[in-house]
Amino acid sequence: MTERKTVKDYIRTIVDFPHEGIMFRDVTTLFSDPRGFRICVDQMLDPYAGQRIDKVVGLEARGFILGGAIAHQLGCGFVPIRKKGKLPGTTISQDYKLEYGEAIVEIHDDALQPGETVLLVDDLLATGGTAGAGIKLLKRLGAEIVGCAFIIDLPELGGRKLLEDLDMDVHVLCEFEGA
Amino acid sequence: MTERKTVKDYIRTIVDFPHEGIMFRDVTTLFSDPRGFRICVDQMLDPYAGQRIDKVVGLEARGFILGGAIAHQLGCGFVPIRKKGKLPGTTISQDYKLEYGEAIVEIHDDALQPGETVLLVDDLLATGGTAGAGIKLLKRLGAEIVGCAFIIDLPELGGRKLLEDLDMDVHVLCEFEGA
Repeated sequence: MTERKTVKDYIRTIVDFPHEGIMFRDVTTLFSDPRGFRICVDQMLDPYAGQRIDKVVGLEARGFILGGAIAHQLGCGFVPIRKKGKLPGTTISQDYKLEYGEAIVEIHDDALQPGETVLLVDDLLATGGTAGAGIKLLKRLGAEIVGCAFIIDLPELGGRKLLEDLDMDVHVLCEFEGA
Repeated sequence: MTERKTVKDYIRTIVDFPHEGIMFRDVTTLFSDPRGFRICVDQMLDPYAGQRIDKVVGLEARGFILGGAIAHQLGCGFVPIRKKGKLPGTTISQDYKLEYGEAIVEIHDDALQPGETVLLVDDLLATGGTAGAGIKLLKRLGAEIVGCAFIIDLPELGGRKLLEDLDMDVHVLCEFEGA
């Protein structure tokens, strides 16, 4: 029997993107493969089988592709967390630190009802800055966070620890060395 | 029997976003509803039942949510078309006119093989500028475009005619008056 490719095998590395010294882990080659995309969605959900998930929340922009598919698989709704100024309705905002400067993410203030159960998804867990800000937004709306699921973790950047310190259940499909 | 909500019923209108005089048609309320999201995906695909679709292509950013779900439903791969500078690999670019100035969209040059069949999806068909540029990218890669599917058409802006003049099969779920 031939050994089948894993999720990690479908991810390609682009050297020096977006700037020199960065090994960019590119999930577009995972998403564009029918089997890659399917096993990725299945494995993202594996730990949550049987748990109630009312909404899947995805982080802009690659988390939208993944979150749309995961919400469809669960038969539940999808809620976006976006960069500042992109959501048309009334929002709440959360800032977080970047390497240089800071960024702001937003969610519609009526996107979730208190007590709704949500799964937060994104492609990559790096420093955990964006995900951490997303978690704060979800908590401010009173949502119950079932878990935070990512395709890739970069353990050297410490994002997993940051989210676990926020009492999150963190699920990742694979790890890569370096930043 | 109670009449069920249509896709259009789930879409809310935000007045004066992103600037005064615009009636913004907000699909986040459609995507966040389990039934709304499901019937939207089903209806987007309705005309294409039985046709071979190798890849679903989604336009950044709301087309990612929709495209992820549609690709998952079909069991096929997903390919993103993004704004300039966002894709990490080697890309081809296409510019198009905006009301003021111009914009550029990109696709990975190895995202599709000649002869692959694709469905292009986005939430909104307005002037057809972005979709038209996306179609040019897909044709340059030699893809065969099965159709272009949108949730909303704004007929007064003429996008449908622009795409039909490019020999596209255009499928929309609902129309709104005004820009």
